[in-house]
Amino acid sequence: MKRVVILGSTGSIGTQTLDVIRSLPGEFKVVGLGAGNNCRLLAEQIKEFQPCAAALANPESLSRLKKQLPPQVKLELAWGIEGMKNLAAMPEADLVVIAVTGTGGITPTFAALNAGKDVALANKETLVTAGQLVMDLAARKNKSILPIDSEHSAIWQCLNGRPLLELDKIIITASGGPFRHISSVELEKVTVEMALNHPNWSMGSKITIDSATLMNKGLEVIEAKWLFGVSYNQIEVVVHPQSIIHSAVEFKDGSVIAQLGLPNMRLPIQYALTYPRRIPGPVPRLNLTKLQELTFEAPDTVKFPSLRLAYEAGKTGGTMPAVLNAANETAVYAFLQGRLSFCAIATIVEKVMEKHSSINSPDLGQIMEADSWAKTRAREFLRL
Amino acid sequence: MKRVVILGSTGSIGTQTLDVIRSLPGEFKVVGLGAGNNCRLLAEQIKEFQPCAAALANPESLSRLKKQLPPQVKLELAWGIEGMKNLAAMPEADLVVIAVTGTGGITPTFAALNAGKDVALANKETLVTAGQLVMDLAARKNKSILPIDSEHSAIWQCLNGRPLLELDKIIITASGGPFRHISSVELEKVTVEMALNHPNWSMGSKITIDSATLMNKGLEVIEAKWLFGVSYNQIEVVVHPQSIIHSAVEFKDGSVIAQLGLPNMRLPIQYALTYPRRIPGPVPRLNLTKLQELTFEAPDTVKFPSLRLAYEAGKTGGTMPAVLNAANETAVYAFLQGRLSFCAIATIVEKVMEKHSSINSPDLGQIMEADSWAKTRAREFLRL
Repeated sequence: MKRVVILGSTGSIGTQTLDVIRSLPGEFKVVGLGAGNNCRLLAEQIKEFQPCAAALANPESLSRLKKQLPPQVKLELAWGIEGMKNLAAMPEADLVVIAVTGTGGITPTFAALNAGKDVALANKETLVTAGQLVMDLAARKNKSILPIDSEHSAIWQCLNGRPLLELDKIIITASGGPFRHISSVELEKVTVEMALNHPNWSMGSKITIDSATLMNKGLEVIEAKWLFGVSYNQIEVVVHPQSIIHSAVEFKDGSVIAQLGLPNMRLPIQYALTYPRRIPGPVPRLNLTKLQELTFEAPDTVKFPSLRLAYEAGKTGGTMPAVLNAANETAVYAFLQGRLSFCAIATIVEKVMEKHSSINSPDLGQIMEADSWAKTRAREFLRL
Repeated sequence: MKRVVILGSTGSIGTQTLDVIRSLPGEFKVVGLGAGNNCRLLAEQIKEFQPCAAALANPESLSRLKKQLPPQVKLELAWGIEGMKNLAAMPEADLVVIAVTGTGGITPTFAALNAGKDVALANKETLVTAGQLVMDLAARKNKSILPIDSEHSAIWQCLNGRPLLELDKIIITASGGPFRHISSVELEKVTVEMALNHPNWSMGSKITIDSATLMNKGLEVIEAKWLFGVSYNQIEVVVHPQSIIHSAVEFKDGSVIAQLGLPNMRLPIQYALTYPRRIPGPVPRLNLTKLQELTFEAPDTVKFPSLRLAYEAGKTGGTMPAVLNAANETAVYAFLQGRLSFCAIATIVEKVMEKHSSINSPDLGQIMEADSWAKTRAREFLRL
């Protein structure tokens, strides 16, 4: 039985991870759960899965949690980043699922790897901002980063252990978001409601906006670079509006291997949990003959400059991807609050990137500094 | 350097195999070449590739070959089935490519396996008629049958060594042939010229007609059963008119892995030759964004009963697949000679199958007997 810690257990990926675990009795033991402030849901999860330890973001949430737990429930409770680090490094754990959002995923990922755990990673920021450090540490500890994102899981499944030497390129598919066919003029008028209406995937607001700007795909390109050890010239983004082919690889002999399925996060979550095995799971099955056609087009990086900016930040390297990510996050939240137009998101990111002098081979402190520097700069541009 | 024997070197797969070998200098040494009656082309191949031995179908062709070879060319020459068997068992060979047509592929396949060679198999009849015997022998000798057919190569690439236990089903794609959308009434009027006009692949006449009746797909289903050790219920045929997805597998967790490429036999040939490695090769590359849409539909086994008959023959087992294959071959040649209507091909096959009492676990003699019995029966039905 694989012993699992889930950080971010009350979020979208966290709850789906627990669904997968619930559907595969006898396969997993949940030993630790970490959440933000949703103490009601965490209390229910603790009662159901009986972990040895749990943590929340702050002491207030923790004391509310305690009130909701029956007295007979015994477990170690903690809060804050130290609480998350302790969960990630629990001696009882084999695998740590990092499903927290934002830069909060970075520290627990390091803690898990340092403690000799495999990491199932659903947090984008970790690899985008600290990809080099994370992959170096994983290699030193001989531990694996198992992707949970549907695109990276697809690439991982398509590679299936074949040597990097045989790989020609990675083809990351993108739904293209809801605005791929509207004019640049109409794009200026996009509202928050319009942008939150994603055609294929049901996700949080931040990532839905990132899907609409194609920044989400840009961040995935940077993640893929680190996860699979390729150069940016080996990563191609292809718009595939039906989201059935979740990504593909092209080998040096010209053969293309693709992973297909209905858009459903349970499959990549299950594969990361059960890896290296595949076991039967209750994922809705793809029926090719019931599909409409599958189509493909090149992304429009003039209309959606975020994708181009992500490639630029990735190629510059150093602290630039952290700056890209932080400026984008700030701009997206401003858009969601109605303080910025849809097209201005990329403009803010580009302006902040222009102001930044990237530091090569940064340590974690320098990355976090670049992150907060970029957020400050983005807020300044927002006030202008 | 891998040392290769090619049987059927002057045919479509044989010449493409030599093209692949020519394009990968330093990788292969051609040690033996076997052909039917095309002594002119075989003579050219001998001059270019300088094998240690060659064989042709009969002594007349052999003496014509000798006249076309310059006196300084020294190699062992033989003819007939004994000549082919000796080539297949050459001590100098590592891999034997079986690219002869018809039941002529069976004996050399056994000879190669018995001599401890891996076999790259492009001959359909071998597995359709003698699948159990071939796979048992390969297992006993610890040798591999490497498929050259694009569909089976695709499945093999998608499996990539994963355990059979994890496999839920195999999805074999079919172009559907040129008649998938015409009415049953129009199907009765199909001429040889119409049937020979295949939309995606350029192949010999027999296999082009088999593609139009879907019998080709039926034979591939039987081959897949033996190659991959699955049951017939685990093999699904999906019509995919664009022939870009060459086949796919669905794992028990619901994940579908597919192999894609432009329709070009060089890729599966190269993969079988270079296996277990993938190396750069001059195969035209797939560009997803330049494709029209990809579509899928279920095959119509009422309009195209050959596919249903193949499943039935496969499930019956024993000598029935040999009977299916032999009756079909006889009927297709009668159609090509204008002696039979397109729709009557399947009727003849069904009638012959109805007359046959299948023998379980047949030996090679019984299989060959069933083959000639079915051809005789089919000819009788043709005369009625």
